[in-house]
Amino acid sequence: MFGATTLIVKIIGSIGAVSAGLDLGKEGPLVHIGSCIASLLGQGGPDNYRIKWRWLRYFNNDRDRRDLITCGSSSGVCAAFRAPVGGVLFALEEVATWWRSALLWRTFFSTAVVVVVLRAFIEICHTGKCGLFGEGGLIMFDVSNVTVRYHVMDIVLVVVIGIIGGVLGSLYNHVLHKVLRLYNLINHLAVALFTSMCEYGLPFLAKCTPCDPSLPESTCPTNGRSGNFKQFNCPPGYYNDLATLLLTTNDDAVRNIFSTNTPQEYQPLSLVIFFVLYCILGLITFGIAVPSGLFLPIILMGSGYGRLLGIYMGPHTNIDQGLFAVLGAASLMAGSMRMTVSLCVIFLELTNNLLLLPITMIVLLIAKTVGDSFNPSIYEIILHLKGLPFMDANPEPWMRNLTVGELVDVKPSVVTLHGVEKVAKIVDVLKNTTHNAFPVMDDGVVPPVVGQANGGTELHGLILRAHLIQALKKKWFLKERRRTEEWEVREKFTWVELAEREGSIEEVAVTSEEMEMFVDLHPLTNTTPFTVLESMSVAKAMILFRQVGLRHLLVVPKYQASGVSPVIGILTRQDLLAHNILTVFPHLAISKGREKRN
Amino acid sequence: MFGATTLIVKIIGSIGAVSAGLDLGKEGPLVHIGSCIASLLGQGGPDNYRIKWRWLRYFNNDRDRRDLITCGSSSGVCAAFRAPVGGVLFALEEVATWWRSALLWRTFFSTAVVVVVLRAFIEICHTGKCGLFGEGGLIMFDVSNVTVRYHVMDIVLVVVIGIIGGVLGSLYNHVLHKVLRLYNLINHLAVALFTSMCEYGLPFLAKCTPCDPSLPESTCPTNGRSGNFKQFNCPPGYYNDLATLLLTTNDDAVRNIFSTNTPQEYQPLSLVIFFVLYCILGLITFGIAVPSGLFLPIILMGSGYGRLLGIYMGPHTNIDQGLFAVLGAASLMAGSMRMTVSLCVIFLELTNNLLLLPITMIVLLIAKTVGDSFNPSIYEIILHLKGLPFMDANPEPWMRNLTVGELVDVKPSVVTLHGVEKVAKIVDVLKNTTHNAFPVMDDGVVPPVVGQANGGTELHGLILRAHLIQALKKKWFLKERRRTEEWEVREKFTWVELAEREGSIEEVAVTSEEMEMFVDLHPLTNTTPFTVLESMSVAKAMILFRQVGLRHLLVVPKYQASGVSPVIGILTRQDLLAHNILTVFPHLAISKGREKRN
Repeated sequence: MFGATTLIVKIIGSIGAVSAGLDLGKEGPLVHIGSCIASLLGQGGPDNYRIKWRWLRYFNNDRDRRDLITCGSSSGVCAAFRAPVGGVLFALEEVATWWRSALLWRTFFSTAVVVVVLRAFIEICHTGKCGLFGEGGLIMFDVSNVTVRYHVMDIVLVVVIGIIGGVLGSLYNHVLHKVLRLYNLINHLAVALFTSMCEYGLPFLAKCTPCDPSLPESTCPTNGRSGNFKQFNCPPGYYNDLATLLLTTNDDAVRNIFSTNTPQEYQPLSLVIFFVLYCILGLITFGIAVPSGLFLPIILMGSGYGRLLGIYMGPHTNIDQGLFAVLGAASLMAGSMRMTVSLCVIFLELTNNLLLLPITMIVLLIAKTVGDSFNPSIYEIILHLKGLPFMDANPEPWMRNLTVGELVDVKPSVVTLHGVEKVAKIVDVLKNTTHNAFPVMDDGVVPPVVGQANGGTELHGLILRAHLIQALKKKWFLKERRRTEEWEVREKFTWVELAEREGSIEEVAVTSEEMEMFVDLHPLTNTTPFTVLESMSVAKAMILFRQVGLRHLLVVPKYQASGVSPVIGILTRQDLLAHNILTVFPHLAISKGREKRN
Repeated sequence: MFGATTLIVKIIGSIGAVSAGLDLGKEGPLVHIGSCIASLLGQGGPDNYRIKWRWLRYFNNDRDRRDLITCGSSSGVCAAFRAPVGGVLFALEEVATWWRSALLWRTFFSTAVVVVVLRAFIEICHTGKCGLFGEGGLIMFDVSNVTVRYHVMDIVLVVVIGIIGGVLGSLYNHVLHKVLRLYNLINHLAVALFTSMCEYGLPFLAKCTPCDPSLPESTCPTNGRSGNFKQFNCPPGYYNDLATLLLTTNDDAVRNIFSTNTPQEYQPLSLVIFFVLYCILGLITFGIAVPSGLFLPIILMGSGYGRLLGIYMGPHTNIDQGLFAVLGAASLMAGSMRMTVSLCVIFLELTNNLLLLPITMIVLLIAKTVGDSFNPSIYEIILHLKGLPFMDANPEPWMRNLTVGELVDVKPSVVTLHGVEKVAKIVDVLKNTTHNAFPVMDDGVVPPVVGQANGGTELHGLILRAHLIQALKKKWFLKERRRTEEWEVREKFTWVELAEREGSIEEVAVTSEEMEMFVDLHPLTNTTPFTVLESMSVAKAMILFRQVGLRHLLVVPKYQASGVSPVIGILTRQDLLAHNILTVFPHLAISKGREKRN
């Protein structure tokens, strides 16, 4: 998922897709590219050419890998929108399933580096020798040249924008969900052809508009790559407003539709065509197998209806039409993606208009609230469609009425190992199960605290499949059933080897003689696994799982008696996914309607 | 801590302190006021005049109370700096010990409301009829009128500012720590007198500077409340630069020292006097018992040395002196408070200069890193001094080598109750212990899963002191030792009553006859407590405690045998504080030097 091949494919693919003029955003592939680079750096390079520096091994664990990938994805957002703080908050609000305070300034550091490098390149490309790169400087869609003034009536309008954004956003999610199910029916070439045809052909439908005589001749009409008033098929002194929006890069299209202090620039018909076209393109382009992001298509759509609303509301408001376009884009984003803080900061960093902040906040909150009442966010829908085991942020209400004891009851019973285990048993367990961790238990141990005569069972901890394979590979066998000292292990295994997660049981060859020998698992066991009582509700277990960032959770009995196993079961992320629980306990789905949304 | 009296005292106190011209910030009291209002709203008003609306009771639990207080404090920061997003992030980075995604948009909502209300009042006070309120509009210290240009050499300078900020910030923390220990020696009146004397007297030391002839006569010199060039004791056509900085409100002082495109305005000597004076004032003012915040004093100090650096570096850099003052303020803030993202956004919202963002980020990160290598943040120091049980964000390294089993071993043994318990025992336990929760256990229960003959002990859950008192108050007693049905409880107790946390055991009168009766605790018990194995390390237990937001954590044995108690001990926040652990296990302190910093 984060390999070197993926990286190269994504880079080439996204360059191709963006330069083909398809209706897609750069931030999706850039987030993925950032995560790939982070993951590769953390493991010291691609699988076959790994650098084996000692200090690199410090990152070879789940937690740091996850942190690095989070940093990578926030760098991706930062690079796509030149929005360093927005990138940090995007990672915080949308990407990371768990969070710790150290991660905040680490992602902040990575985006700071990105923005300094970006700034340097923009400086170098100042004179325009790098093509379109660096246009607009650090602020992509600057609307700071307009003073924001509003009165009570304008707030009502802003609320209306928010509500429309919420409704349209959830509608978009709904339709995109349907479209993505038909994935294979959509042909790449057809989409590219359709996009080109529409973008070139539709401007002929628009009427030519005379240039405002107050504008200098060099800005209206223009014929270059960028420019706010494109001549296209019009006579001198006239411009084609639809060509301004369609015959340009996506970034420039946004810049043109956000343009402020130009109340007469666009005709309603052109904006309707623009809006409808980008609704269609936004839906079908995301369906083709091309690296793409959702931000830009949604911004384009949203700005279309926002500006249209601005034209019709013009007489009743003080807010500039360009700002209406910004607010429309923000509302559709929140209506579809359901983020608040990160979107707000991203829009602030994109548009550089701090005075717009209060109304942006209102629009985002209303659109999110309206959208949430219809369906889940677009990211949740896509994750659900792809079947990725991504845990929901909040447990479903019915999870409170199910205990983890009931949940493990319907699973196959847990496979446990003894503290000193026969090699044959280990090989058998590794070959016949796919579990990644096994509880380790000792029988007949006399609890030292109580000092009673008959021994009980002791839960020693949890051993990982990878460590069992390492022990077999290294042939760390004992002739008799005895416990080893810790120094013996330290001589045999370095922590670097234990951090390795590679190798499968098929690679291990064990002779029949060795099969009768023993392995002492105690030193290789994690003695501090997280546990829950069997009476714990699934909802609380899920919160624990997500907040602490676990892979395995042991379920222990609430009874204390001889003969009871100290472990009842083991829960993984898969077991706690709402979808998987509902297939086993279908009656829970009926009790509350909330999960029907998926 | 969050009562109505506190609220009124804080409001009056902070108005008095700010208008007295003391060197303190408004954000401290405003955060506290916001939290008080949130807490009072959540419980329906002050203790004696509570509104008993039914829906209000929904908030009467720990989690919602905590959320409300977090929203209140972010509103406070938002109101102090007119920085809505900064307020959210401040709460996220500094205030909340735990976090969930829903909290993000809830705090966002509260700050959105604050900023809209603020905006409305600023609009109403537009014509200056509300005194100083609303000056500067939504952006307090606007420096957006300067274009930010920098080259590689400037980055070096920026790094230097960051390093100096880190060193000065940690020095400030160190000295403030010493000053706060002498708390009582500092007299309120003396501080107020000293402040006034210095602010009025010191400007006489400064030389008069001739006004720049390019400036209109109405702006230089001025004699009003605000204005960048104060005449004070100077002849017409001249101004006193130290009076500009001292004879004004704190907000205006910041605005004046941040002023851009005025490279000749301040003389180095004046800035040195300003810096030294505010260092002294910042240290002694915080020691007096007046509601105060740290932001503004640190901004004043930092801007002083930043501008000074700007004057000396002027020939070698493109960066404006006003921006140097901003960067100096940012670096001292990060050096003392060790926040990154929230400070960055607060500064962005204060100064409205997006192009300054990359260098601000570098300065903040460097100052934080340098400061962290000397001592903990100022907030941690103050919390430690006041002895508040605020859990550290990260466990200390030595905590990995201590198990929770060892920790509960040195505590008095845990007090447990039976599922059906004698009234006398309950009264005795409540009177003779101060615990807030007790494990509930049943003897002789036959585990249904295993189906063996001899019964064991079952851990039923955890019961709160408040619920025991409710049961005694309602005299919910049984003549014989039997279990009740759940509906019996539902008839007797409403959830509203169980949410109440008031009443003490002293208020309960139990006759000697009742003492011999029984209470069935099963229905009142929380059957889903969080648990850890005794072999769990303290570090991981602490992460669990903080991430899930717990009050009690049960320690269960890793042994499974008859006669072993299913609960070994119970951990509270107090038990997991590094300071408290070290008093019991002093040898741990020597092993690593890191905790000596406190």
